[in-house]
Amino acid sequence: MSLVEKFQGKRVLVTGGLGFIGSNVARTLADAGAEVTVLDALIPQHGGDLYNLEGVSERVRTVVADMRDDAALNHIVKGQDFIFHLAGQVSHGDSMREPELDLAVNCTATIKLVEACRYHNPQAILVNTSTRQVYGRPQFLPVTEEHPVEPVDVNGINKLAAEYYHLLYHRVYDVRSVVLRLTNTYGPRQQIKNERQGMAGVFLNRALRGQDLKLFGTGLQLRDFNYVDDVVEALLLAAVTPDCYGKLFNLGADPCHSLLEFCSILQQLCGIRYEVVPFPADRKLIDIGDYYGSFQRFAAATGWQPRVDLAEGLRQSVEFFKQHRDHYLT
Amino acid sequence: MSLVEKFQGKRVLVTGGLGFIGSNVARTLADAGAEVTVLDALIPQHGGDLYNLEGVSERVRTVVADMRDDAALNHIVKGQDFIFHLAGQVSHGDSMREPELDLAVNCTATIKLVEACRYHNPQAILVNTSTRQVYGRPQFLPVTEEHPVEPVDVNGINKLAAEYYHLLYHRVYDVRSVVLRLTNTYGPRQQIKNERQGMAGVFLNRALRGQDLKLFGTGLQLRDFNYVDDVVEALLLAAVTPDCYGKLFNLGADPCHSLLEFCSILQQLCGIRYEVVPFPADRKLIDIGDYYGSFQRFAAATGWQPRVDLAEGLRQSVEFFKQHRDHYLT
Repeated sequence: MSLVEKFQGKRVLVTGGLGFIGSNVARTLADAGAEVTVLDALIPQHGGDLYNLEGVSERVRTVVADMRDDAALNHIVKGQDFIFHLAGQVSHGDSMREPELDLAVNCTATIKLVEACRYHNPQAILVNTSTRQVYGRPQFLPVTEEHPVEPVDVNGINKLAAEYYHLLYHRVYDVRSVVLRLTNTYGPRQQIKNERQGMAGVFLNRALRGQDLKLFGTGLQLRDFNYVDDVVEALLLAAVTPDCYGKLFNLGADPCHSLLEFCSILQQLCGIRYEVVPFPADRKLIDIGDYYGSFQRFAAATGWQPRVDLAEGLRQSVEFFKQHRDHYLT
Repeated sequence: MSLVEKFQGKRVLVTGGLGFIGSNVARTLADAGAEVTVLDALIPQHGGDLYNLEGVSERVRTVVADMRDDAALNHIVKGQDFIFHLAGQVSHGDSMREPELDLAVNCTATIKLVEACRYHNPQAILVNTSTRQVYGRPQFLPVTEEHPVEPVDVNGINKLAAEYYHLLYHRVYDVRSVVLRLTNTYGPRQQIKNERQGMAGVFLNRALRGQDLKLFGTGLQLRDFNYVDDVVEALLLAAVTPDCYGKLFNLGADPCHSLLEFCSILQQLCGIRYEVVPFPADRKLIDIGDYYGSFQRFAAATGWQPRVDLAEGLRQSVEFFKQHRDHYLT
């Protein structure tokens, strides 16, 4: 049985299912014959977009509600076989400007979700998406799951707390939860229109508009980039691998790439130029230098390997956004 | 100049200042001639009690308000020289029963406090009290500040997030904050009437009522107990030691003691008996085994050493609670 076949006929909830990664999960599962519900608050600027389900929307039950609405959440959680928790605020800058909103969306909502599982659906399998941002500035590379956590922004702090809730509810209440720490994910349906959601989105947006790119520092900073299809596969694998429950895992990519390499590929795809400029002071404060993680623990547990290399992933992304330019760029 | 003299004429805010440790801080500073404001929400069962300021209340400005009330908090934070942040929910059991309330009181309130400092009083010196509970079950002893954090209850998760906010606001906005991880603190004005606030309080309460004590497991579990006067001194030292800003420190005691030793002292002081019984299943889940921490980092930075040993501290505690039996026991 293939991986997606394991979800055929299953009831699946995707929180944040109108967002970038959530919508890709929902589409894959709808195509696999799962009974998919997406829950999304459509908080402005957070990335949720009904258009992300275009073509599958008639096969997906879409609920626009805030996870902090207990009645809605408890009702929706009941009876689900799998819950993929993608809802959240992911902008580091926004978390520093509006720390309370970040806390509400990332922590209050997550507590409500694990409580809903505890009381209304303790059989559910729950996959939480966290971020490599919890590690802060790397003390060694590649960063393994044993690396100390030292978040450098409010978002990292709150995402870390959200991880802990999941693992605690596994330990104390037997909720079958898995935590994946995502690194730089990019690809179709990423919110690139505003520049809130990471470097990959910013560069894609500008390159697609034909604008030249500016790299801060030296451009030699290393990152591990995951194409969204690989991340979706990781989430599904985590859900169906009992050895993963109660544990946390890095995702990652091998090889990693410098930001210069990333821009160089976009140069070829979009015909733009790029230059290296000094770090603005406010960005330097939250810069973490090189980052690449080890995903060996997850590979050993599930056999996962990213399949799409950066050149191919960016090619597919550029092609997608050019096809849907009217929606994602204007 | 003695330590307390450094606070003479200074404006000091104590959040949670009607609680156990907060009221002891407020009393000490009022006696030292500081201009003390206490802010306390008097949330039922959280330990706040107007009686804790008996004898100094005319020299302390008491504001009963919830820290989540932005207008009140921002107004009160303005112009303070020092802020001791003692407000919070500290019951591990309550945090598991009401995780959202724990989040609100420990995280939302703390974000509002550091934001108030950022915008309305960036000169303030801010001392945060955290807990050794953030470490979870010790992986090595004594536990140093380098020990991995792995909270075993919702309270530990939320207190850890609150620490990170303080350290982040130091790093990014130059708020002069210090984090102290307290261990088992006991002494006068501890809330012992209900059994929510740790083993020391539970045993003191029962012994003072003449009830026999039950120890779970073997009774040989080790703990480091700090008498509240030593903790107050640590908080004041942290506040006036610039080397501490932006850092976190364990408190602790040397020697540590087994729970049996603790009960044996109470046996002598109160004439009660004690016995060892098997662990109830629900308590075993959140039990952390032996715990004692190293406070060498803090001793090196400030010269702090706990002065009151367990026998003397319990003697003074029992004497205090006997004098104020009508209030604290009934």
